[in-house]
Amino acid sequence: MCHNAGMDDEYLAPQKPGIIGTGRLEAFSDGVLAVIITIMVLELRPPDGADISALTSLTSKFLVYVLSFAIIAIYWNNHHHLLHATRAINGNVMWANLHLLFWLSLVPVGTAWAGDHPLAPWPAAIYGLIGFLAGVAYYILSRTIVRANKGTDIEKAIGSDVKGKISIAIYALGMLLASLSQAIAFSPILSYIVYAGVAVLWFIPDRRLAGDDPPAQG
Amino acid sequence: MCHNAGMDDEYLAPQKPGIIGTGRLEAFSDGVLAVIITIMVLELRPPDGADISALTSLTSKFLVYVLSFAIIAIYWNNHHHLLHATRAINGNVMWANLHLLFWLSLVPVGTAWAGDHPLAPWPAAIYGLIGFLAGVAYYILSRTIVRANKGTDIEKAIGSDVKGKISIAIYALGMLLASLSQAIAFSPILSYIVYAGVAVLWFIPDRRLAGDDPPAQG
Amino acid sequence: MCHNAGMDDEYLAPQKPGIIGTGRLEAFSDGVLAVIITIMVLELRPPDGADISALTSLTSKFLVYVLSFAIIAIYWNNHHHLLHATRAINGNVMWANLHLLFWLSLVPVGTAWAGDHPLAPWPAAIYGLIGFLAGVAYYILSRTIVRANKGTDIEKAIGSDVKGKISIAIYALGMLLASLSQAIAFSPILSYIVYAGVAVLWFIPDRRLAGDDPPAQG
Amino acid sequence: MCHNAGMDDEYLAPQKPGIIGTGRLEAFSDGVLAVIITIMVLELRPPDGADISALTSLTSKFLVYVLSFAIIAIYWNNHHHLLHATRAINGNVMWANLHLLFWLSLVPVGTAWAGDHPLAPWPAAIYGLIGFLAGVAYYILSRTIVRANKGTDIEKAIGSDVKGKISIAIYALGMLLASLSQAIAFSPILSYIVYAGVAVLWFIPDRRLAGDDPPAQG
Repeated sequence: MCHNAGMDDEYLAPQKPGIIGTGRLEAFSDGVLAVIITIMVLELRPPDGADISALTSLTSKFLVYVLSFAIIAIYWNNHHHLLHATRAINGNVMWANLHLLFWLSLVPVGTAWAGDHPLAPWPAAIYGLIGFLAGVAYYILSRTIVRANKGTDIEKAIGSDVKGKISIAIYALGMLLASLSQAIAFSPILSYIVYAGVAVLWFIPDRRLAGDDPPAQG
Repeated sequence: MCHNAGMDDEYLAPQKPGIIGTGRLEAFSDGVLAVIITIMVLELRPPDGADISALTSLTSKFLVYVLSFAIIAIYWNNHHHLLHATRAINGNVMWANLHLLFWLSLVPVGTAWAGDHPLAPWPAAIYGLIGFLAGVAYYILSRTIVRANKGTDIEKAIGSDVKGKISIAIYALGMLLASLSQAIAFSPILSYIVYAGVAVLWFIPDRRLAGDDPPAQG
Repeated sequence: MCHNAGMDDEYLAPQKPGIIGTGRLEAFSDGVLAVIITIMVLELRPPDGADISALTSLTSKFLVYVLSFAIIAIYWNNHHHLLHATRAINGNVMWANLHLLFWLSLVPVGTAWAGDHPLAPWPAAIYGLIGFLAGVAYYILSRTIVRANKGTDIEKAIGSDVKGKISIAIYALGMLLASLSQAIAFSPILSYIVYAGVAVLWFIPDRRLAGDDPPAQG
Repeated sequence: MCHNAGMDDEYLAPQKPGIIGTGRLEAFSDGVLAVIITIMVLELRPPDGADISALTSLTSKFLVYVLSFAIIAIYWNNHHHLLHATRAINGNVMWANLHLLFWLSLVPVGTAWAGDHPLAPWPAAIYGLIGFLAGVAYYILSRTIVRANKGTDIEKAIGSDVKGKISIAIYALGMLLASLSQAIAFSPILSYIVYAGVAVLWFIPDRRLAGDDPPAQG
């Protein structure tokens, strides 16, 4: 039992006041992200009929669900990597993390609205706005963590986060496209393609994680 | 794998009967708070129309959601701090913790009712009542934990919890304002502003957490 | 970071094949119980009106919610105690645990039905049936764990579980009362009072947990 | 407190760059599986009436719920076993795991559709398709983990996974049966019986887990 082991350790060793580990912040974030990624599926209501044609009416909802699942999955991956490199947190990190979770908690609403109106510009713009603000919140979180871990090798581990900055810019572009779609008469689906591009960007194996050598047998 | 490591430790070292660590109480609380903070978003139903005007109808619901998200986030932060300073729990602590989770579990209902009727006095009063009772439950929890950890430095770590007591008083004031709003003819929105004041009170960096120095490289 | 610590430990020390710790079984159970205890609140739909009279229509739903919250809370408490005394699990324990979670997963449905029809005999009987089967499943789980931990002091730690057996008997009595209520013309509310008696039985401080001395400062 | 114990360990010992433990991947998967297994119960809406006859209308929904609960439970069991034998993960494992969770996240939708139309062929075929794709995703995950843990004894621990391959084949058979049911005029319920056969296959005690000897007292 992990908990008791930890307990016993601490029972023997006095606490280091001021050092707060990342364990519970990770656990709470995992919980929130797990619920977000799963309740989105509640929007995929089973079709009324029992025929395959009833299923096709779900196509646009399903595609937006896939995109949102990928977005939350990418955030979980990046959050995992970021916190893996983190040694200690403080109150500012806790709030920056909750700020990120707040914007991500709006993804299910954005997904539901976009799935209902896949050809309308406003849902596409709002979907991009949520992604944009989540991207900004992630950037703030990573900077806050770096400040809270000065003196460690965290900056080297996190890197310059170019992908993160590009993602934010692409979301802004998608929002712009959605807003202009009615004026210049093209489909807001282009915005979703742009948002999907952000996900593809992150699927490409990352030197940071995928390049790790497997552990050799001790 | 954390679990096995813990398991192995315990497999070798005999258990300390009577000492119950905080790990699983924290994990369960994290789970409940993660679900509470996330299912509230299910109330933010996407608007029927696809226009931006449809979105404005969600404004009051959104604002109450932001407030409730902040309240749960603050409780998670404080719970994290409180349990971080705790060395052992007993049956009384477990029940006091479940008592707190019970009142917090009602926050989504209060949020939904308040979001539906932002200008009505009763939803504002009930919203404050839930916050008031959660505040009292948190106070009971912290006292129960202190009693269960006599002989440790927990009282110094927790402090006198002045903010907690002020929060309870402010919630009582907000409830009173909501109840009187119809008689003296002012808007119950004043109550929500008062409740938001509690959240702002907690956002102000706390010496307990934010003032910690970052860990120096060993 | 707890996970890495565990990982590092295991990386150095070879695994003990055949020994499976309780960590992940506890984590998964915590997750399921946290979701169960929280989604029940989704049944407490906010009233349509904004008046206090609209709230009174929720009374019976609220009371059943309180009872179900207490029941899940008691199971979490007992599960915590049981697994705390457990050193290792095997496939049988994993299935016995999932069997318990299955019956507990039906508590929200039973709660919703009972809250809709508080004066009807069948919802009261089904509510008791779910509690009865969960009680039996918990008894099976505790016996399975004892068999998987022979040679340890688990039997002494768990004890004879008199309360568990009494609880099962009281649930059977409540079901009988609900079934007979129409024939002998008394209210099925008597059954809920009987079920509440089970919860009260568990609230009474237990020598096993509450009697523990607080840890002395090392 | 497990987290702090881990934190302290890591604070003292420098991180092993490139080695990522399984802890958080397990925790996130537990969270997602816990939510999936529990939100399915939201489909079991309490009947409108209070009579026992109202309950019988839920029979088919209940049976499909039992089957889906068993399927998710089996995946959790197998995931537990697989990750127990895993020493380190990389980015590919994280994506393979999220791929598995994606298909499992569709189980609640498939369950709801099948419960609504238990005698229709298409819901039975789609239910099997989800199970088939989840089975394929699990196979991919196990191969990815083996590749990430070369040099350890993981392959011996996982074995050839004959059951996994048989399960995938049976799901394909069930889909075929459902698709043909209208043409050859037999009930698609046969497909569900075939899917239930997969669950029974996994209930049979497995030498890998159930045959473990209980730990002897140290």
